[in-house]
Amino acid sequence: MGNTFGRLFRVTTFGESHGAGVGVVIDGCPPRLPLAVEDVQRELDRRRPGQSTLVSPRREADQVEILSGVVDGITLGTPIAMMVRNTDQRSRDYGDVARAYRPSHADFTYQAKYGIRAVAGGGRASARETVGRVAAGAVARAVLAPLGVTLVAWVDEVADLVAAVDPATVTVDQVERTPVRCPDDAAAAAMIERIEGARKAGDSLGGVIRAIARGVPAGLGEPVFDRLDADLAKAMVSLPAVKGFEVGSGFAGARMTGSQHNDPFARRDDGRIGTLTNHSGGVQGGISNGEDVTLRVAFKPTATIMRPQQTVDVDGEPTTLEPRGRHDPCVLPRAVPIVEAMMALVLADHWLRWRGQCG
Amino acid sequence: MGNTFGRLFRVTTFGESHGAGVGVVIDGCPPRLPLAVEDVQRELDRRRPGQSTLVSPRREADQVEILSGVVDGITLGTPIAMMVRNTDQRSRDYGDVARAYRPSHADFTYQAKYGIRAVAGGGRASARETVGRVAAGAVARAVLAPLGVTLVAWVDEVADLVAAVDPATVTVDQVERTPVRCPDDAAAAAMIERIEGARKAGDSLGGVIRAIARGVPAGLGEPVFDRLDADLAKAMVSLPAVKGFEVGSGFAGARMTGSQHNDPFARRDDGRIGTLTNHSGGVQGGISNGEDVTLRVAFKPTATIMRPQQTVDVDGEPTTLEPRGRHDPCVLPRAVPIVEAMMALVLADHWLRWRGQCG
Amino acid sequence: MGNTFGRLFRVTTFGESHGAGVGVVIDGCPPRLPLAVEDVQRELDRRRPGQSTLVSPRREADQVEILSGVVDGITLGTPIAMMVRNTDQRSRDYGDVARAYRPSHADFTYQAKYGIRAVAGGGRASARETVGRVAAGAVARAVLAPLGVTLVAWVDEVADLVAAVDPATVTVDQVERTPVRCPDDAAAAAMIERIEGARKAGDSLGGVIRAIARGVPAGLGEPVFDRLDADLAKAMVSLPAVKGFEVGSGFAGARMTGSQHNDPFARRDDGRIGTLTNHSGGVQGGISNGEDVTLRVAFKPTATIMRPQQTVDVDGEPTTLEPRGRHDPCVLPRAVPIVEAMMALVLADHWLRWRGQCG
Amino acid sequence: MGNTFGRLFRVTTFGESHGAGVGVVIDGCPPRLPLAVEDVQRELDRRRPGQSTLVSPRREADQVEILSGVVDGITLGTPIAMMVRNTDQRSRDYGDVARAYRPSHADFTYQAKYGIRAVAGGGRASARETVGRVAAGAVARAVLAPLGVTLVAWVDEVADLVAAVDPATVTVDQVERTPVRCPDDAAAAAMIERIEGARKAGDSLGGVIRAIARGVPAGLGEPVFDRLDADLAKAMVSLPAVKGFEVGSGFAGARMTGSQHNDPFARRDDGRIGTLTNHSGGVQGGISNGEDVTLRVAFKPTATIMRPQQTVDVDGEPTTLEPRGRHDPCVLPRAVPIVEAMMALVLADHWLRWRGQCG
Repeated sequence: MGNTFGRLFRVTTFGESHGAGVGVVIDGCPPRLPLAVEDVQRELDRRRPGQSTLVSPRREADQVEILSGVVDGITLGTPIAMMVRNTDQRSRDYGDVARAYRPSHADFTYQAKYGIRAVAGGGRASARETVGRVAAGAVARAVLAPLGVTLVAWVDEVADLVAAVDPATVTVDQVERTPVRCPDDAAAAAMIERIEGARKAGDSLGGVIRAIARGVPAGLGEPVFDRLDADLAKAMVSLPAVKGFEVGSGFAGARMTGSQHNDPFARRDDGRIGTLTNHSGGVQGGISNGEDVTLRVAFKPTATIMRPQQTVDVDGEPTTLEPRGRHDPCVLPRAVPIVEAMMALVLADHWLRWRGQCG
Repeated sequence: MGNTFGRLFRVTTFGESHGAGVGVVIDGCPPRLPLAVEDVQRELDRRRPGQSTLVSPRREADQVEILSGVVDGITLGTPIAMMVRNTDQRSRDYGDVARAYRPSHADFTYQAKYGIRAVAGGGRASARETVGRVAAGAVARAVLAPLGVTLVAWVDEVADLVAAVDPATVTVDQVERTPVRCPDDAAAAAMIERIEGARKAGDSLGGVIRAIARGVPAGLGEPVFDRLDADLAKAMVSLPAVKGFEVGSGFAGARMTGSQHNDPFARRDDGRIGTLTNHSGGVQGGISNGEDVTLRVAFKPTATIMRPQQTVDVDGEPTTLEPRGRHDPCVLPRAVPIVEAMMALVLADHWLRWRGQCG
Repeated sequence: MGNTFGRLFRVTTFGESHGAGVGVVIDGCPPRLPLAVEDVQRELDRRRPGQSTLVSPRREADQVEILSGVVDGITLGTPIAMMVRNTDQRSRDYGDVARAYRPSHADFTYQAKYGIRAVAGGGRASARETVGRVAAGAVARAVLAPLGVTLVAWVDEVADLVAAVDPATVTVDQVERTPVRCPDDAAAAAMIERIEGARKAGDSLGGVIRAIARGVPAGLGEPVFDRLDADLAKAMVSLPAVKGFEVGSGFAGARMTGSQHNDPFARRDDGRIGTLTNHSGGVQGGISNGEDVTLRVAFKPTATIMRPQQTVDVDGEPTTLEPRGRHDPCVLPRAVPIVEAMMALVLADHWLRWRGQCG
Repeated sequence: MGNTFGRLFRVTTFGESHGAGVGVVIDGCPPRLPLAVEDVQRELDRRRPGQSTLVSPRREADQVEILSGVVDGITLGTPIAMMVRNTDQRSRDYGDVARAYRPSHADFTYQAKYGIRAVAGGGRASARETVGRVAAGAVARAVLAPLGVTLVAWVDEVADLVAAVDPATVTVDQVERTPVRCPDDAAAAAMIERIEGARKAGDSLGGVIRAIARGVPAGLGEPVFDRLDADLAKAMVSLPAVKGFEVGSGFAGARMTGSQHNDPFARRDDGRIGTLTNHSGGVQGGISNGEDVTLRVAFKPTATIMRPQQTVDVDGEPTTLEPRGRHDPCVLPRAVPIVEAMMALVLADHWLRWRGQCG
């Protein structure tokens, strides 16, 4: 269970990292939207391993095939299924993973839950599962495009290195011009150096991604449980390695007073009502207010490290796990398009929900 | 939409703050569980306004009535409906709220979404909606009790005041012995003083609640989207005034290295496999690992303050909103049972989900 | 589980026949619709016991209270909760029902499922549960009214007595002018006589209700599983005592040839494309085609009869159940507004679904 | 929307008849069940066109590939995706279908709903969509097997030809020994002759399929909306060409009296409580009672016939549609495994639901 996301724009992902492939079925996509396979491939290429020296050297072409729901580049309104075949399945020996639980991986918990697990490559817990999310996100962008909604995410922190940028002005081009996907060039350089250092040390790093959606119309989001920010929180914390989520002022906001934190309303030059500050992060009472929707996502350091680690085997006996295989010392750069995709899924779903109930 | 939470243990809340009442319907509760109305009332009393000088002086008895689903103190397996009548509906003039948008309240966004709003008392955006959640949480506790799961939450921070406690040892009694619900007596005294100061200043304060679930069996939680921590994130961010969520190491974990953050497995004295540290917060790959499930929730300062505020009226004209009515300078103490309730809802739901698929 | 119906227009009923009351929560109702409590009461009065000598003499005022979601006769878009208190709970001895399983009632199956059951009055299996459905149906009608959709249902058969009417022309007034709710006056008279005869004989009768929705726009209904007719089938078979469902030509259609059954398209006088016949019952490929949506629902004879019946007690020992209490020899007349309500729920839901995805 | 079926055992189908392929994703399948690709292929072979002269000569190998969720013939508990590539896509000219609406096909309604349609092969409205259902049904059988549940369905009627069999004793072998899948050899011969006659006449025939599930434990099914029979009704009416559904006594039951229809309880030889008759069709109050679950499904004659038909073109102008392509004069024989598959899906889902709430 739990492999479907969204109420009206419903996304179901499938596939293990080392089976036939990974993919997604989108049910509820509006008809008559332009959707080229290149739109999907572009986002997958941003997520792909091997795109720079910073990330996993695993080389997968990750060529997506649209199996259904699109004819002549136009959506039909019927389920859009997309698949990426697994190709880079080195026939390495996974015997060590079969015998011992890797610390802070999902080996132990999958075994506890299911009484069985796909040993090779981590199964559904592998970041490879996010291929389906990113492909679906590209479709969600096509849903949002007519509304004028645009998304941008970037690496805001790696370890204790923090980008110094004005979030309101960051562009996709600024983000994409460095392999670390940080729009602050100086911070980006430091982050790259730090990540290279971690690789050499056989260790890994975490960090924070910030994301902004601009042009979100006021009125999206549901009281009570399906608040826009609650669904964004679920979307982000459902990603591998995420340990924290903030909307608007986040944890810093908890230290402010009400008179500091409240966002005063004012009439904008264009006549629309807006707020003078945006501590709310574009969401009030769970519903978008027309300001930028802003959030931050904390990623722990990757669990895979190139060092011997103490653990237990499947019988509970102490053992040492020797480092093997490939190693992505910092997943943040590749997670940027994934965060954007999840944000797009939530917004597209809530847009259709608004239209259904209130349109 | 969006007023239902959970997949198998499904909770639907209803009611505006100033209508006939607020309540909840729970569908999917297992049969043959003992459930007394007092079990529910006890939790509602912890959430109730007017229980101490720290919180809102609004006095509501909040007497719950169980309308269905329980006979002779035993659950039937059929829907459990519960209602609390609204009683303290002072006939004050809400004309100012009708005419102007209160900063950082949901007046504007409800109007934007629905084109109409319940002016009196904030409607569904009122914290009064959480009555239904807390009542449902009491039922969820009855589901979890046979498993040996226990929950405790407390006020970990108010503004910049931080409790110094060992989370692993905090008890409900420690929490409940001060009106601020902070188990560190010294910090509690400082928090109380700070809150009283904010009341006098007509201002409000935010803070952080920490919650722990002990005794959660390994194996609860779903890959991929309905991870246990993702559902907890949604549960918490769906609460009024919440701006941030952390599981386990949270944002601090983003600054650690993998070799620091990974939780080594070891065999416990009782023979079970456990981890020597718990940066994971009891969840790995979205599934519980048998350790304490730990999370933190950041609340912004309450939007209602007793100070004049600049805003616009419904026509977009600038206006000043004068302070009126009642004021809860810090909702954190009352939010403690609400956080516990939401945690119980998520755990009960995932317990039934596990049993359905894997039991 | 299973007490919620609908995807966007979501209806959750609650309540046992002999507890505090029965009710419903509707989530997802569009905002700004006029809805008076009288609109709901009117439909409940049609469903009420004791409205004529034909149906159960149980006298319940069935006064509905709207608990939330409506202010000043206008829907808010938030959950609409409605409740009817149980009043006519005679303190009769249910000891016989507690000890023995009534044939073709749900005593045995509830016990088998839950290991417990509400003995008094049949619990959730009581037809009293349909109060919530009818109340929700009144709200669904308010959703459909702006579209020009109108519904009419009537008793088409009682036992082997069949109404002879042209379905296309039947009006609500024709239906309501006899207590048996059959628009064919001659058949109505015969049905009334037959039902009175069954009452005297202590026996019960079944029959068939036909329902038509006019003015349904083309395009409602989903491939593949949530076909409009599939959701109508579920809606109808979810009613107590229903054993069969037909859309359009139904079982008779299975004996036709394709060249007889196919509905030729033609241009209507008003320029719209329509069909010359309507064997399809207004639904093709699961989607409405703009013609009248027509269906028939078969009800078995009521299980409660005033005759001694052989059965077993809870220990499996043979026993004779003596007739007791009240007896409704034919539920068909009272089921007419219930069938209409379920049809309205399905159509309102699919209208919002269409608007969400394709609007 | 609407391409997912089931609450815990969730089946999502995808694919158009003339795109890359058709398939299914199953979420929520229990782990550790044996599942061989041959188990799935066997059911698909029963559904396949071209298996006899009675059905469509379209020759498709319909080779299924399991993409995920199964390792070494054992289910993992993660999504099981399966796909069948489309191969027999004759490049015939669909210009006539593009220009004119085929009577009683879904061309017109898809166009009305989506404003676009997959012209070639009927898109999602094609019976080819049922490939995914049958594949999923094979997995559902694996879920039910440990319970001892067995299913059998057969052609009970073709046009006015009716099988004379005792439903309680029909076996799969009896069904499969004739290409028409009718266990009454005499009736089968007559049906075959009638179908061959219809083919020669360029016409088509409808009929009725009966299905029985044996060994269903008492207690499956939910009050109120998700009754076992209501979900079976939806499952069956969601199939292409279905116009009617009966459980147990069905429409005939509506003509019986209560004293005739009630099923008396008695103790069985094995000590279990059972009923002496089974007018209820194994379901009482929406919950299985341990008797055989019996249902009947009415199929209209196929809309595709080899005769000129009057219709309108997309501009509403009258036109004549000339017969083209391939023609399946009676889909009933191929629909037998599809009906079984849908029945298996419902039972598997309700089994997991029971276990989740009551297990």
